[in-house]
Amino acid sequence: DLVASTAACFAEGPLAGQRVVISAGPTREAIDPVRYLSNNSSGKMGFALARSAARLGAEVCLIAGPVSLPTPAGVERIDVLSALDMHSAASTALTRCDIFIGTAAVADFRLSSVAEQKIKKDSSGPAPSLALVENPDIIAMVAQHPLRPRRVIAFAAETEHLEQHAGKKLATKQVDAVVANDVSRTDIGFGAEHNEILWVGAHNTVAFGPANKSAVADFILQQIINLDLHHEPS
Amino acid sequence: DLVASTAACFAEGPLAGQRVVISAGPTREAIDPVRYLSNNSSGKMGFALARSAARLGAEVCLIAGPVSLPTPAGVERIDVLSALDMHSAASTALTRCDIFIGTAAVADFRLSSVAEQKIKKDSSGPAPSLALVENPDIIAMVAQHPLRPRRVIAFAAETEHLEQHAGKKLATKQVDAVVANDVSRTDIGFGAEHNEILWVGAHNTVAFGPANKSAVADFILQQIINLDLHHEPS
Repeated sequence: DLVASTAACFAEGPLAGQRVVISAGPTREAIDPVRYLSNNSSGKMGFALARSAARLGAEVCLIAGPVSLPTPAGVERIDVLSALDMHSAASTALTRCDIFIGTAAVADFRLSSVAEQKIKKDSSGPAPSLALVENPDIIAMVAQHPLRPRRVIAFAAETEHLEQHAGKKLATKQVDAVVANDVSRTDIGFGAEHNEILWVGAHNTVAFGPANKSAVADFILQQIINLDLHHEPS
Repeated sequence: DLVASTAACFAEGPLAGQRVVISAGPTREAIDPVRYLSNNSSGKMGFALARSAARLGAEVCLIAGPVSLPTPAGVERIDVLSALDMHSAASTALTRCDIFIGTAAVADFRLSSVAEQKIKKDSSGPAPSLALVENPDIIAMVAQHPLRPRRVIAFAAETEHLEQHAGKKLATKQVDAVVANDVSRTDIGFGAEHNEILWVGAHNTVAFGPANKSAVADFILQQIINLDLHHEPS
């Protein structure tokens, strides 16, 4: 951590001196000791952003759900499993954070109770149903926190009505921009090497891609840098 | 396939000329286009068995759920996602199968209906609950099939009462043996490199391990070979 911090002090590039916190991947919500709820997020977009941000001189902290991806060079990584774990790690990270980018596909719901032993199948009775409760909204917590980072960027994984959902998310969550992508397509989004996104800020909506996730990451970081260059209030 | 079959014809070893079908890994049950139910199975035990069986001369077909493991050399691999997919692949494989080893942690339940679009969070209403229906029992289907393989081995991932659960499974599913392991321990079982198992056959119960999963695989295959050596009726 000291080495990384020291390196960041001497870093060059448009994000030198900035601490960027990125959440990535899915979360896992336990049902019992072996079963869980999760989603198809591969974490690739968040890891690409971490790599690009480090290359642009930022000090990067990556809060990663369960993914099988190597940590980008020079990036501090915090591994978490559940949405509550990720919420807690994000909260802690706010003590030192200039830019927060929430790419993680955080589970909206967790089980209302987690079984201590593996639930046994009992074909005699009716099939069970899983009662859920809503998880806390991490990106809204970050954007509305007393220690709010200067810039907060949300992601929206949608399967329809991208711009409409993104616009709504921008307003309700009070973030600086929402990056929306269509995860119903198999050529882009979850698991794919490429992405095609819609950047929806307060003053501009820009489409980018399809392009590889590294190029998309560079584009997104440039948009974030532009927010300050254009002196938009944070 | 022809190359593999030809190779198997010339293979040496105690399993030469035998076709071994192994299911491995978890299954994923879709909730909507991005969310799913799954479990912590890493597939490592099944992949270790596939590797060992091929080394012992068998022609091996590995039906794999979503795992990030390389295919062992000389092994035919069929990738599947859901329990229904795996059921169908296992069914098809029975046309040519001498030994079936069900290591997969097949989801007992799937969603009663899969949403076509991503389910949106709506904090105004009550949290949803997920209605489930039971999946078909793949190992029971295999063991009770008109094309039943000569040997059918089930796995039981338990968190308590191993021998009792395994004995019950042996009888109800009509398999030749049940391999039970305790997945509540973090040093063995799901995700771990090691395993400690209880082989529960009709005439013997043998504990093995802790040992690395490759040694456990060799032990299990030797037990299966012993079933024939001791002329136990299949």
